[in-house]
Amino acid sequence: MEPKTPEQSKTTLTDMVLPGETNPLGNLFGGELLARMDRAAAIAARRHSTRIVVTASVNHVAFNKAVPLDSVVTVEAKVSRAFNTSMEVFIDAWIEDRKSGERTKANEGIYTFVAVDETGKPVKVPELIPETNLEKERFAAALRRKQLSLLLSGKMKPSEATELKAFFI
Amino acid sequence: MEPKTPEQSKTTLTDMVLPGETNPLGNLFGGELLARMDRAAAIAARRHSTRIVVTASVNHVAFNKAVPLDSVVTVEAKVSRAFNTSMEVFIDAWIEDRKSGERTKANEGIYTFVAVDETGKPVKVPELIPETNLEKERFAAALRRKQLSLLLSGKMKPSEATELKAFFI
Amino acid sequence: MEPKTPEQSKTTLTDMVLPGETNPLGNLFGGELLARMDRAAAIAARRHSTRIVVTASVNHVAFNKAVPLDSVVTVEAKVSRAFNTSMEVFIDAWIEDRKSGERTKANEGIYTFVAVDETGKPVKVPELIPETNLEKERFAAALRRKQLSLLLSGKMKPSEATELKAFFI
Amino acid sequence: MEPKTPEQSKTTLTDMVLPGETNPLGNLFGGELLARMDRAAAIAARRHSTRIVVTASVNHVAFNKAVPLDSVVTVEAKVSRAFNTSMEVFIDAWIEDRKSGERTKANEGIYTFVAVDETGKPVKVPELIPETNLEKERFAAALRRKQLSLLLSGKMKPSEATELKAFFI
Amino acid sequence: MEPKTPEQSKTTLTDMVLPGETNPLGNLFGGELLARMDRAAAIAARRHSTRIVVTASVNHVAFNKAVPLDSVVTVEAKVSRAFNTSMEVFIDAWIEDRKSGERTKANEGIYTFVAVDETGKPVKVPELIPETNLEKERFAAALRRKQLSLLLSGKMKPSEATELKAFFI
Amino acid sequence: MEPKTPEQSKTTLTDMVLPGETNPLGNLFGGELLARMDRAAAIAARRHSTRIVVTASVNHVAFNKAVPLDSVVTVEAKVSRAFNTSMEVFIDAWIEDRKSGERTKANEGIYTFVAVDETGKPVKVPELIPETNLEKERFAAALRRKQLSLLLSGKMKPSEATELKAFFI
Repeated sequence: MEPKTPEQSKTTLTDMVLPGETNPLGNLFGGELLARMDRAAAIAARRHSTRIVVTASVNHVAFNKAVPLDSVVTVEAKVSRAFNTSMEVFIDAWIEDRKSGERTKANEGIYTFVAVDETGKPVKVPELIPETNLEKERFAAALRRKQLSLLLSGKMKPSEATELKAFFI
Repeated sequence: MEPKTPEQSKTTLTDMVLPGETNPLGNLFGGELLARMDRAAAIAARRHSTRIVVTASVNHVAFNKAVPLDSVVTVEAKVSRAFNTSMEVFIDAWIEDRKSGERTKANEGIYTFVAVDETGKPVKVPELIPETNLEKERFAAALRRKQLSLLLSGKMKPSEATELKAFFI
Repeated sequence: MEPKTPEQSKTTLTDMVLPGETNPLGNLFGGELLARMDRAAAIAARRHSTRIVVTASVNHVAFNKAVPLDSVVTVEAKVSRAFNTSMEVFIDAWIEDRKSGERTKANEGIYTFVAVDETGKPVKVPELIPETNLEKERFAAALRRKQLSLLLSGKMKPSEATELKAFFI
Repeated sequence: MEPKTPEQSKTTLTDMVLPGETNPLGNLFGGELLARMDRAAAIAARRHSTRIVVTASVNHVAFNKAVPLDSVVTVEAKVSRAFNTSMEVFIDAWIEDRKSGERTKANEGIYTFVAVDETGKPVKVPELIPETNLEKERFAAALRRKQLSLLLSGKMKPSEATELKAFFI
Repeated sequence: MEPKTPEQSKTTLTDMVLPGETNPLGNLFGGELLARMDRAAAIAARRHSTRIVVTASVNHVAFNKAVPLDSVVTVEAKVSRAFNTSMEVFIDAWIEDRKSGERTKANEGIYTFVAVDETGKPVKVPELIPETNLEKERFAAALRRKQLSLLLSGKMKPSEATELKAFFI
Repeated sequence: MEPKTPEQSKTTLTDMVLPGETNPLGNLFGGELLARMDRAAAIAARRHSTRIVVTASVNHVAFNKAVPLDSVVTVEAKVSRAFNTSMEVFIDAWIEDRKSGERTKANEGIYTFVAVDETGKPVKVPELIPETNLEKERFAAALRRKQLSLLLSGKMKPSEATELKAFFI
């Protein structure tokens, strides 16, 4: 399997915020944003692996900035690191100013997907080679997040979490 | 107002087809595709004009190829010609093969939007300068479509539809 | 196959406009109206052909009048012309004043459907015999629209578009 | 206020059953049918009263026949009796056979609406004059249903429910 | 089959009211409340019978109190009486004050479900033993409602409706 | 402000999985589960704080088990720790076997909410006093998660993350 770059899985979902997708404060409802991120991220993981993919976990989503009714929101997903059969996908959400066209980062999310065959059995995915500085940073942090996740679920001992330990000490 | 290129209004909406968006044959429901095209095209018109925009008409949508459940569909909209206060937007819809990653053109649509100010009064929009061959073709055809539309609604006499006449004779 | 009248396929879909179906201006969202038209028109084509039908194209939809939240909207579809295996369906959308009960034409649309058998192969449909003056006008114009469509897609030469030519000269 | 006939409030909502509106058995989901009935019935009550109307109660809905995916369903609502400020609305739901065009009664429902002014205060509605035999039957039964409802909620004594009593004895 | 108590089928569906679920007055849309009641009640009937269940009828729903946007609504369903193959389910809907936490009864509904096997044939369900005073009252009233329903549909003669008759005389 | 227990904010959302809420594999669509968790968790945070609350972040959601079409899913949310103006909410999702009635843990999620006043300014929330062993464990882990989050966003130095450090060494 040929390694791939994050750019090759890049998925863009630009859409509006209609009244039926808002919360009572008149902003994009959190659950709707989570669903849009899930859809874009699943497509990115599918493009990287050329396989059926299933959501394994949401690792983190930060709601930094409310997205008001009538905004144009761009959800952009790219695979940030490939492990054996799983992929971490980083999702950035942007809103843009109608008059100036300027884009502002509103939220970001990190999801993990597993590639499976037709019977649901996990299958190997291609390696990911980060290119830009941001991609390299996210690639490195993905390993710490993975160790943290294994640690918290009791599947790894603290002593084995070498990447994570180095971060604290 | 600075003229703009089609590329500057390009809007990409890549999304999946879930069961709740299908018709009884298991393909993307026509009305759902029309709605996705409307959303992407409205954003393209807004990006070109930096104004509030309202859908004036759907000029044509061809359903050439059914889009099956679980497809990844990319709806791509670009302004194809700017008139005084209105803009024609061309929308291409693509599906991609999961294994090969190859994209196939599934459907295309043409919508017209009008730019308005806060009181709903139409306002002038920037000129559009097409760049690629395809953009130039669509730009030229847009005038014929506009004349045809004026003609059919009785707002232009056949003798004035010079562009259109030339096409037939 | 017995010929049929437009009245025999007439389909009425009267419904309200709820907040979840509006755009940020508080009017019926364009995509939702397109979907309602698609549903009503597909039923009209099915009633005419007694067959499974698939949307082939949206030929034109004019958004003449915004449809505000809480309106009662009546979408009325009738087959306007039957060709060999395809049918043109004309859709009128009306809103009514709550106090006077008066109906105003808000929008209209023209869609084309193809009748297919269980394997998806196009099948012949009954002839359509227009009765009222409006039905006869729409019947005549349908042929011009069909020629125009064939012409624009390169499936007919300008010299063969006799109906259309006569309209310009 | 001029009395009105049931025909004057008749509201027709013909629509399809798409996958997103079904239950796990592949039939129209009960809640979706109840919502369609509510929408059609509210329009009928509005047409009769020319007022804002609010749903006061669902008196009865019988699910006699499942409505399978891809059915064409016609929901037809008519005011069946007008009281002082409230109206009973009778709703019939029909499905039709695609090949023969034959309509079968699938379900029926009875809802009650109250007409209110802009401040939410109940206001008088026009009298209803039934015309057909079926309309007359439903008109008579509506009074029994009203007495029953008052009785069950403790707002009427059994001895006062004259219409209802006559029915049992 | 072991008899069961109402508590054993108790189903709680606490949820918010978002803008996409409101009517034009800014309150929970009636159809949406009917659907939530249907979902909770179906689960209660399934828990009682451990069978596939289908909605047979809505016997009554009273909309006593509007449920405004942003409310927290609790729909609580319990089987109120089991007959041979059918079950009556009572549904209470509550809203709560954000500041005091106090709950107010907003609406109530009564639905009937039938338990069926995989082929759709009705099957016997366990007996219901009411425990609290309210449960006992609803249990008793359920029989009168059942007789009333049989009577109105012509499946029982007035002389046989002993429970109901006793109520009037 | 009186301290509160997790039980006081407990929110239960039991609902079915209908076809319109599934993914192409016929299981509950991930985005829909995330939205249901968001709704239940927001209500729990509102019950604890008696304030308007906004989602600050999704800290983790594990999709351990697919939730098939027609499942009964119970989403149960309780505040797991209160900080100054924010609250961590733990959400468990259960599915139950129709025949045995047995419940199986399917997924779990952790969300953070901030309590705000009418102007959107964060306000203090009551303390949380965990009672059961599981509540105490989650309470303790919540502090580590909080430190981790501050650390990852650069708002805390590794040397200050005392709770977290102790976990690794």
